[in-house]
Amino acid sequence: MSDGSAILKSMLDQTAVGRVFHALGDPTRRVIVEQLCRGPKSAKDLAGPLHITLAAVVQHLQRLEESGLIRTTKVGRVRTCQIEPAGLQVAQQWIAKRRSLWERRLDRLGAVLTAERK
Amino acid sequence: MSDGSAILKSMLDQTAVGRVFHALGDPTRRVIVEQLCRGPKSAKDLAGPLHITLAAVVQHLQRLEESGLIRTTKVGRVRTCQIEPAGLQVAQQWIAKRRSLWERRLDRLGAVLTAERK
Repeated sequence: MSDGSAILKSMLDQTAVGRVFHALGDPTRRVIVEQLCRGPKSAKDLAGPLHITLAAVVQHLQRLEESGLIRTTKVGRVRTCQIEPAGLQVAQQWIAKRRSLWERRLDRLGAVLTAERK
Repeated sequence: MSDGSAILKSMLDQTAVGRVFHALGDPTRRVIVEQLCRGPKSAKDLAGPLHITLAAVVQHLQRLEESGLIRTTKVGRVRTCQIEPAGLQVAQQWIAKRRSLWERRLDRLGAVLTAERK
């Protein structure tokens, strides 16, 4: 595969991780994720301490649900939100893979330097 | 500290991680990060396989540099870009901390269920 088509494939493959990073780019959504890591909460429970309207929280929750970071279930009139650990894992794996690329490169550089010293 | 002020503090503290996540929310910037994990490159080297203009690459590089994910050095007329591993680490640590919050909660739930069975 040429460099160009490998890059194109990589961009298409990464829509899921892109949605996760985009969702986590917003400070309110990061606070919601943090709160839900401590346990399930209703949209109303989340809105109170954030000092924002319920409508604004619901918009953030929709974005978080689309990204796969949370899931919500509605029982009667109450929508309960909980963390979806696979979402955070997608982002963590993306980062870990890039860091390992970089570390392998450092290892190769180290090996070259050691060989040159001999 | 009340729940509200803890949340406010957490939002203010997270500007650095917010810039990293925001920068990684864009597919072109993720490809640039991936390319730079394989080794330093000039803006021109990066622009070619991405099929975008040099001016567009330079804009993405500025955003990546502001977020702390890369650093650039200019020698003569050539600007060389390289990965700044601390940037990826900031994002990785943020995620790892939230996952550990969630795992601790699961452990506590597990302990409660075990105690109830006795």
